Amino acid sequence: MNGADQLCDVLLQNEVSVCFANPGTSEMHFVAALDRRPEMRCVLGLFEGVATGAADGYARIADRPAATLLHTGPGLANGLANLHNARRACVPMVNIIGDHAGYHLPFDAPLTADIQGLAQPMSAWVGRAETAADVRRVTEQAIVEAWRNSNVASMILPADAAWGAVDAAPAGPVSLPARRQVPAESIEAAARALHRAGQRDDRTVLILSGRALHGAALEAAGRIAAHTDAMLFSQQSARHERGQGRVSIRPIPYVVDMAVEALKGVGQAICIGCPAPVAFFAYPGKPSALLPDGCKVIQLGDATHDLATTLDLLEQALGSGGAIATRNPVAQRTTEPPTGPLTLSTIGQSVARLLPENAIICDESITSGRGLAPFIPSMTPHDQLPLTGGAIGIGIPLSVGAAVAAPDRKVLLLQADGSGMYTLQGLWTQARENLDVVTVIFANRTYAILQDEMRNMGVNQFGQNARSMLEIGRPDLDWCALARGMGVEAARADSADAFDQLLGAAFARRGPFLIEAVL
Amino acid sequence: MNGADQLCDVLLQNEVSVCFANPGTSEMHFVAALDRRPEMRCVLGLFEGVATGAADGYARIADRPAATLLHTGPGLANGLANLHNARRACVPMVNIIGDHAGYHLPFDAPLTADIQGLAQPMSAWVGRAETAADVRRVTEQAIVEAWRNSNVASMILPADAAWGAVDAAPAGPVSLPARRQVPAESIEAAARALHRAGQRDDRTVLILSGRALHGAALEAAGRIAAHTDAMLFSQQSARHERGQGRVSIRPIPYVVDMAVEALKGVGQAICIGCPAPVAFFAYPGKPSALLPDGCKVIQLGDATHDLATTLDLLEQALGSGGAIATRNPVAQRTTEPPTGPLTLSTIGQSVARLLPENAIICDESITSGRGLAPFIPSMTPHDQLPLTGGAIGIGIPLSVGAAVAAPDRKVLLLQADGSGMYTLQGLWTQARENLDVVTVIFANRTYAILQDEMRNMGVNQFGQNARSMLEIGRPDLDWCALARGMGVEAARADSADAFDQLLGAAFARRGPFLIEAVL
Repeated sequence: MNGADQLCDVLLQNEVSVCFANPGTSEMHFVAALDRRPEMRCVLGLFEGVATGAADGYARIADRPAATLLHTGPGLANGLANLHNARRACVPMVNIIGDHAGYHLPFDAPLTADIQGLAQPMSAWVGRAETAADVRRVTEQAIVEAWRNSNVASMILPADAAWGAVDAAPAGPVSLPARRQVPAESIEAAARALHRAGQRDDRTVLILSGRALHGAALEAAGRIAAHTDAMLFSQQSARHERGQGRVSIRPIPYVVDMAVEALKGVGQAICIGCPAPVAFFAYPGKPSALLPDGCKVIQLGDATHDLATTLDLLEQALGSGGAIATRNPVAQRTTEPPTGPLTLSTIGQSVARLLPENAIICDESITSGRGLAPFIPSMTPHDQLPLTGGAIGIGIPLSVGAAVAAPDRKVLLLQADGSGMYTLQGLWTQARENLDVVTVIFANRTYAILQDEMRNMGVNQFGQNARSMLEIGRPDLDWCALARGMGVEAARADSADAFDQLLGAAFARRGPFLIEAVL
Repeated sequence: MNGADQLCDVLLQNEVSVCFANPGTSEMHFVAALDRRPEMRCVLGLFEGVATGAADGYARIADRPAATLLHTGPGLANGLANLHNARRACVPMVNIIGDHAGYHLPFDAPLTADIQGLAQPMSAWVGRAETAADVRRVTEQAIVEAWRNSNVASMILPADAAWGAVDAAPAGPVSLPARRQVPAESIEAAARALHRAGQRDDRTVLILSGRALHGAALEAAGRIAAHTDAMLFSQQSARHERGQGRVSIRPIPYVVDMAVEALKGVGQAICIGCPAPVAFFAYPGKPSALLPDGCKVIQLGDATHDLATTLDLLEQALGSGGAIATRNPVAQRTTEPPTGPLTLSTIGQSVARLLPENAIICDESITSGRGLAPFIPSMTPHDQLPLTGGAIGIGIPLSVGAAVAAPDRKVLLLQADGSGMYTLQGLWTQARENLDVVTVIFANRTYAILQDEMRNMGVNQFGQNARSMLEIGRPDLDWCALARGMGVEAARADSADAFDQLLGAAFARRGPFLIEAVL
């Protein structure tokens, strides 16, 4: 067998059984090896940003890494923006990046690039198999590092390491590192702070992130909040459990002024799995830190820690086990379809009344999402996968990965038009794999968030250059044509009634469908 | 004025008057400054790879840099693959990459990334304006470095350097560095080698690159070759002058075996502006260096040298001024349109008979290009802009930049379908700017080059995984729908007659048009 065969075997032995790929010539031996292992599911993206974003979406749902297959420095470069998001989502991922044979590098052939240098900023770990004999060790290390850091591990595979011969010595799976435990004294400090919360003049908040937003951990946090009168906030994370009956939790607003207002008067913040919240961007005269000056911050762990156990121990220290968490009300779904003009509010109503059980909402709705927010607590319980790192172009790829990870769940993708254009190629993968994804495009034909930011600067009259950079009409994009061009059925809605009907019909069938919501 | 205003002024003072942009929040002050300067032409790309590839195409035709405007680390990352191509094309470019305000960076906000680290592998120079007071100096340096290196200069602009106040002290253009001269002794050595060429048993070749492939430099090379019996080859470069009546020159073949065959028996190689040719990829048992072992290589300069003067001095040393260069024949154009099934050969015939005078051919035809090659010498004289660095997704962006640089010339884009999908967003910019580009998509619905490479490895039966990664059908892409979705008129041709008619009609009108050539 060769190094590429061994690489496939190590991935499969360690349950890395999906590979989101866009190969090139230097990876042909790896492609041939994958072809000899039909148990590896290879999913082609027509652009590398689709592959890396899909691997992120897969990990957020499957809670284990997928592999990507990327072609040398430029192929990696095309995937970096979504690796940035994956890094900020703290999901495990194993990138396999092909490179020239080692002896070919000194010739500086046209595709030669500093792959290590490109991978480093968006990876928690970067390694290189210099020879075929290195492949097992480096692949195993990549898998271990992806788990240990709960983050992106990038492995460089030179062509001669792929094609070189190795012994087919059998080996089992590697032993994966357990999540780290938060020090007991930190948990005790948090418990003391929470214990005093009721007697203080200021507010105490619990800020949750990552795996603290799921299942038992979220339930425990809900009881702790109820018991101590602390308010629950969430930091944008890989996966949020939301909807009817779920523990009530408020996302920290994106807009700085709103975030500052939401956190006004907070004197103690217990941050579970994350540092204190910060502004997305800097603005003249506005703060970078969102908590008030002098607020006491206790951080319990990060994405590499066992947050469920942390919250369990915190709950034990507080004795909050009997408390009743505040939950989103469980109400009858509105049965009347909305009518009249199509607005974000009618879209929110339609989603709230039609969303199937246990759906996954991939959310890159950007400014449009603000209009939908009021309807989320009344939606059927679902997982939300948001944009984590601010690198737009994640939505369509995320929907691909989530649908591959959960073929029995409906995926709803809420997609802004400007950011959707970044990785629209992913619609083709939806069609190729017949993924059960309903995509809603919010066609406002502007970079609306940037127009808001210009107005925040006091600029209300846009000249020609500002308009040319902040509007994406002239010509308008026809998302139905784009979708059909990639094999995805699509229809346009310009009224609340039409949207509601289309969404109902799309949810009732299997396979990809796109609705262009003209706003 | 603020730092962003000053940046605009320095760019304009130095004739950097086109900005291919995709801005974000951290660049809003720069957008506002650009809006105050309508003399700067801002061209929006709906993805950063469009912006960087367009800046490359612009520089190849205008022979001066455009600016790009990119949004923080991820925005830069999206543009890196085409920066890689620009780096390999050795074209000047000035990237302006927005970043968070300096004081905001320690907060590690979601979009924070190592911009310097990402820019370095694809830039000849990277600088950062720490404050508004820095902006003039750093911008001027970026422009000087873009010229000095004939390559990519990347300037990082933190938001607070953009919004900070500066004095509006007037200043003129910077003094641009002259191209370097090749040492006289190298030219003399080349002259001695060429002088002996006729008396040797082996072959002598002149390998031209970059600006040696244009105008007077190419003419001089043609005379030198005729005088000394040396054969002329070209290395893939930013711009090739080709067609009827132009000096005959053979591109070094991409396929290793063909390149080795073409260079068999070469004992002396004079490389003008480039190192000795190397294989694009490494293959087991095949060489990395394409020239025979023991071949004497004399390299005269690189992209930063004055290659026209170099060839002039070489010609003086050889006394070849009276020689008659071998030229492509000037023939009547075939007037009969091809008929029958659509093939690469009929496409070549149609282009040869219909191409307008002084056209620009942007060429990312990949495998399909091999079928067109025989027709090139009989085409009307034109400039060809090829894929230089092997990072696919350059074609559509290149056509945008070339058309912006030369509004009076017709641009023909020969585009493979697989690589076209990488940056298809550029079609929208063609429509937005009403660029005079005819795009021909070679719809073979495979990564044909990779299927060839698999067969080269001896794999002729593709299993499910190989097929899923090497075919881009299932579903077929509908390029007409994709083009119309972005506002570009389009039609499909599946016969030679239909293609010929469509191409003629597309050349006869102004504005973008796309022909999907179904192969």
